[in-house]
Amino acid sequence: LGATGDPSQDFCSQILNSGVKPGFPKTIKTNDPDVLRAARHSVESFNNCSNDAFLFRESHISRALVQIVKGLKFMLDLDISRTTCKKTRHSSLDDCGFQTNRTLKQTLSCYSEVWVIPWLQSFKVPVLRCH
Amino acid sequence: LGATGDPSQDFCSQILNSGVKPGFPKTIKTNDPDVLRAARHSVESFNNCSNDAFLFRESHISRALVQIVKGLKFMLDLDISRTTCKKTRHSSLDDCGFQTNRTLKQTLSCYSEVWVIPWLQSFKVPVLRCH
Ligand SMILES: [Zn+2]
Ligand SMILES: [Zn+2]
Ligand SMILES: [Zn+2]
Ligand SMILES: [Zn+2]
Ligand SMILES: [Zn+2]
Ligand SMILES: [Zn+2]
Ligand SMILES: [Zn+2]
Ligand SMILES: [Zn+2]
Ligand SMILES: [Zn+2]
Ligand SMILES: [Zn+2]
Repeated sequence: LGATGDPSQDFCSQILNSGVKPGFPKTIKTNDPDVLRAARHSVESFNNCSNDAFLFRESHISRALVQIVKGLKFMLDLDISRTTCKKTRHSSLDDCGFQTNRTLKQTLSCYSEVWVIPWLQSFKVPVLRCH
Repeated sequence: LGATGDPSQDFCSQILNSGVKPGFPKTIKTNDPDVLRAARHSVESFNNCSNDAFLFRESHISRALVQIVKGLKFMLDLDISRTTCKKTRHSSLDDCGFQTNRTLKQTLSCYSEVWVIPWLQSFKVPVLRCH
């Protein structure tokens, strides 16, 4: 097999950078508050990117993994569904119910990765794939 | 929580890119030949980066996950250990036994991600962290 790209100095410098044993992804309960927050950040990222007239909201989290890596990295298997909240309204998604109208109802299956750095009070959603 | 970085166009274009439901990481047997190959690629990356006089070789794979994402992405929890093969020798690691000398023996715990694209016959090791 051919290797794509020789290890660069950047790659090499990441290897022995850790004071502790590197974390491996572990199953976490889908109703854990941190998982719920990560799901909410994921769908907020979706809404920021979408051209839809309505906001989407997380509707089901079927699986979740968490990995300790300079913070917490969540890997989520989640569904997001179209709500009745218009995009122009800056609603809290907490107040948005799902569409019941047959032509407007839509659910997408997504995979997301959410990286939370608690001591910086920050998060990123580096991966989001929906179908 | 503050979000680090607004979703760029690159980020947004990845979201609805998939003709199938995005894959979620799944447990795979640590003795699966693909896992063994991925572990080998991981330690080869380590050796390419290390200043050690000897080659390291995968010594134990304790956990493995695989995710379907435009190919296969392996997530490995593996130990690598110092062998008796000098780095200057272009040995196949298959022929390299582990150090038994007390001062030279060393084992590192690593986490790696290996992305295999079978139809291109290529692979990458985008993540490797050892301790
Ligand atoms: Zn340690
Ligand atoms: Zn929690
Ligand atoms: Zn948020
Ligand atoms: Zn579901
Ligand atoms: Zn909110
Ligand atoms: Zn489908
Ligand atoms: Zn296999
Ligand atoms: Zn290899
Ligand atoms: Zn081990
Ligand atoms: Zn080889």
